[in-house]
Amino acid sequence: MANKDDKLMEKVQTLARNRGFVYPDSEIYGGMANTWDLGPLGVELKNNLKQLWWKFFVQSHDNMVGVDSAIIMNPRVWEASGHVGEFGDVLVDCKKCQNRFRADHIIEEVIQIDVEGKTSKEISEILTKNKVKCPSCGATDFTEPRQFNLLFKTHVGVIEDDKSAAYLRGETAQGMFTNFKNIVATSRKRVPFGIAQIGKAFRNEITPGNYIFRTREFEIAEFEYFIHPGDWEKPFEFWLANMHEFADIIGLPKNKLHDHDIPKEKLAHYSKRTVDIEFDFPFGQKELWGIAYRQDYDLSRHIEYSKEDLSYTDPMTSEKYVPHVIEPTFGVERTMLAILCSAYSEDMVGDESRTVLRLPMTLAPFKFAVLPLSKKPELEGNAKEVWTLLSKLGNTDYDETQSIGKRYRRQDEIGTPYCITVDFETLEDNAVTIRDRDTMKQTRVKINELEKHLTDLL
Amino acid sequence: MANKDDKLMEKVQTLARNRGFVYPDSEIYGGMANTWDLGPLGVELKNNLKQLWWKFFVQSHDNMVGVDSAIIMNPRVWEASGHVGEFGDVLVDCKKCQNRFRADHIIEEVIQIDVEGKTSKEISEILTKNKVKCPSCGATDFTEPRQFNLLFKTHVGVIEDDKSAAYLRGETAQGMFTNFKNIVATSRKRVPFGIAQIGKAFRNEITPGNYIFRTREFEIAEFEYFIHPGDWEKPFEFWLANMHEFADIIGLPKNKLHDHDIPKEKLAHYSKRTVDIEFDFPFGQKELWGIAYRQDYDLSRHIEYSKEDLSYTDPMTSEKYVPHVIEPTFGVERTMLAILCSAYSEDMVGDESRTVLRLPMTLAPFKFAVLPLSKKPELEGNAKEVWTLLSKLGNTDYDETQSIGKRYRRQDEIGTPYCITVDFETLEDNAVTIRDRDTMKQTRVKINELEKHLTDLL
Repeated sequence: MANKDDKLMEKVQTLARNRGFVYPDSEIYGGMANTWDLGPLGVELKNNLKQLWWKFFVQSHDNMVGVDSAIIMNPRVWEASGHVGEFGDVLVDCKKCQNRFRADHIIEEVIQIDVEGKTSKEISEILTKNKVKCPSCGATDFTEPRQFNLLFKTHVGVIEDDKSAAYLRGETAQGMFTNFKNIVATSRKRVPFGIAQIGKAFRNEITPGNYIFRTREFEIAEFEYFIHPGDWEKPFEFWLANMHEFADIIGLPKNKLHDHDIPKEKLAHYSKRTVDIEFDFPFGQKELWGIAYRQDYDLSRHIEYSKEDLSYTDPMTSEKYVPHVIEPTFGVERTMLAILCSAYSEDMVGDESRTVLRLPMTLAPFKFAVLPLSKKPELEGNAKEVWTLLSKLGNTDYDETQSIGKRYRRQDEIGTPYCITVDFETLEDNAVTIRDRDTMKQTRVKINELEKHLTDLL
Repeated sequence: MANKDDKLMEKVQTLARNRGFVYPDSEIYGGMANTWDLGPLGVELKNNLKQLWWKFFVQSHDNMVGVDSAIIMNPRVWEASGHVGEFGDVLVDCKKCQNRFRADHIIEEVIQIDVEGKTSKEISEILTKNKVKCPSCGATDFTEPRQFNLLFKTHVGVIEDDKSAAYLRGETAQGMFTNFKNIVATSRKRVPFGIAQIGKAFRNEITPGNYIFRTREFEIAEFEYFIHPGDWEKPFEFWLANMHEFADIIGLPKNKLHDHDIPKEKLAHYSKRTVDIEFDFPFGQKELWGIAYRQDYDLSRHIEYSKEDLSYTDPMTSEKYVPHVIEPTFGVERTMLAILCSAYSEDMVGDESRTVLRLPMTLAPFKFAVLPLSKKPELEGNAKEVWTLLSKLGNTDYDETQSIGKRYRRQDEIGTPYCITVDFETLEDNAVTIRDRDTMKQTRVKINELEKHLTDLL
């Protein structure tokens, strides 16, 4: 099992690199640790995923709106949110080999204890008491644990001092809370309603890793759903069910998803319920998405720090209160990884194996590929004409190099649902061959019926 | 003229704020200087603009591909590009009032001389020779000009030292150059072909301003079109013409756009031709977009710094060369501002004036708004049913508060092309009223014919 999954990860990474989904960042300079760029197909996949998410969670609900807030906000936002004071990893150094580790990681790996919420002192005691060994050299002598802040710091303006210090946002959620008042005033939405955002966040992680699963720079899609304090169970279940429906739409198999209801004693003090939706990645069952009922913690902190009135007055009952929130969160890159791992498959075609990325139509970077059978100029006119026609229906590839068999395999590998072949018969019958990625069935269709035929498939 | 335009800027800003296009960032904390957040309608407008750009410049060409590169790249990228050494503003302080200015700005404002490309020493001489006055206090005694680097600096990892220093990207273009080799190897595109990217960039500007025109954090849409060294005039003209076609599609009037061909003596040393497309903003004629023929400057710098072979071998002729590039660049936020300024208009309807945002259909945040005539529950069923139907066709608003007249005005102000009113007659004739934003003409349409009717309008 472990072996098989190890291979899957390697295969997905190799395909992603060779076909232009994901490249190492700055590779000509030896790369940038744990940083990845999206290539031509990766951008299309990511855009499709983000657009689908926005349509599903925002535009399909008449009580959901979006924001796009700044990455470098007023630093007081991060004081209020607790990120400047408390947002960090607890680190220890091995005194023998000098390697540095996240204390929670080595404790969890070595003695399977979860230390979330524990103080540095408690962590230190756990390390000593359990004689936890250094994963690198086996020694049991660590430095005192110390907090390391995860926010990237920079300076705005000419002078580098404390007054000009600012941070790259460590999450997108604060942009929803700081804009809550303006949105209530201008959007005419009434509680319950939600504010969504998709955007980049940055965390100076000590131990990023597992390819695009955990990186220092990453994209989050999430929303804050504002509710009356008394009524959280129903919307919590509603959005949790919607998250599973979305998982289904993007092709994540049900049996690879696991709802992990965080036990009461491990919940953050402000949360009444948090569910991690975990996915069976090749490197283990890990958090993919989460949904948390955070009560009024965030708005109340901003009221305390900003002295602004962020309460809400119900226009029907005139009741005034600070809304509570339910927060569904999605890591975009790790969702892409889950999609790639789920879509990857190998078939036998006769004696030969083929690799197919069984991406859902909506996510596939190219919906169609136009493949002229030969590079001879008499086919080019027809092929380009078909390409122009199909490009209006959806993103369409054009490939005229190598044998038709190799080109089919390549389109299978990048998940293109339909290949349209233009051949010498086309010059006589004005028809093309449509080949289905999954069934490999071929259908002959007249060019003037192509648009209708493919629109039906979409 | 100046007065009229001043009012336009104020009106656009007021509308953008009151209707939820643009809010000041972190406003509950007194804001963050020159930083803006997009509200619910601003996000939709920006997403529509970016998707249209991508469709127009990337997906509609079979030789264009995309990338999405990291914001924090290997810092050597910025040494190679010249940003670490040379990317900056020249600043002076007024010795009397202590205010700090960009030297090029005060020289340009006071004596209308363009100092682009001049050294600090030359700038100092111009200030002294022309007795340039301080814009704040009128004194003529400035400090020596000095270079201020525009890259935001941060540190990656636990230790803050020179080795861990990294930068937020000051432009997106380097991501296309650093990925050039990987894309040639994996995408099967042949010169001429282009690599496009839309993403955030950051510049620690000393004097940002003019609302969302110049901000420290901003989004760029641009591409590098790689060509054979000998053949640059035709593609240059091709993309310049396409930029104007795009301007037309997004509703920028031809008479407000001006091609400014940068004179030879002011061109960057590596550029053979650069055209700034300027737009008549309310605060003056300013650069909106640009297109530059940069020869092989960028790839050659990366070859020099990385020692990698970034040349291209033509598969037909076997000729090996370093491709040249043509680079069209678009500032996303300033394009949004140009769109808002162009779309803003005031009509007289009888004795009353109304404000209309005449946005093109593709850009409008909402394509439709469903307006039940009253909040009575018997209308809600029909109205929600219509909303669900229309939401599948395009983003649709739902508004049931205030008089129908006020709701029409609100939808006019946010640019919604069609309002669909559900009234008590609907209960009998199963029809709704469609109102056209621009003509205000009303048409009665059966609900079961609505989808076809509106699809035709789209």
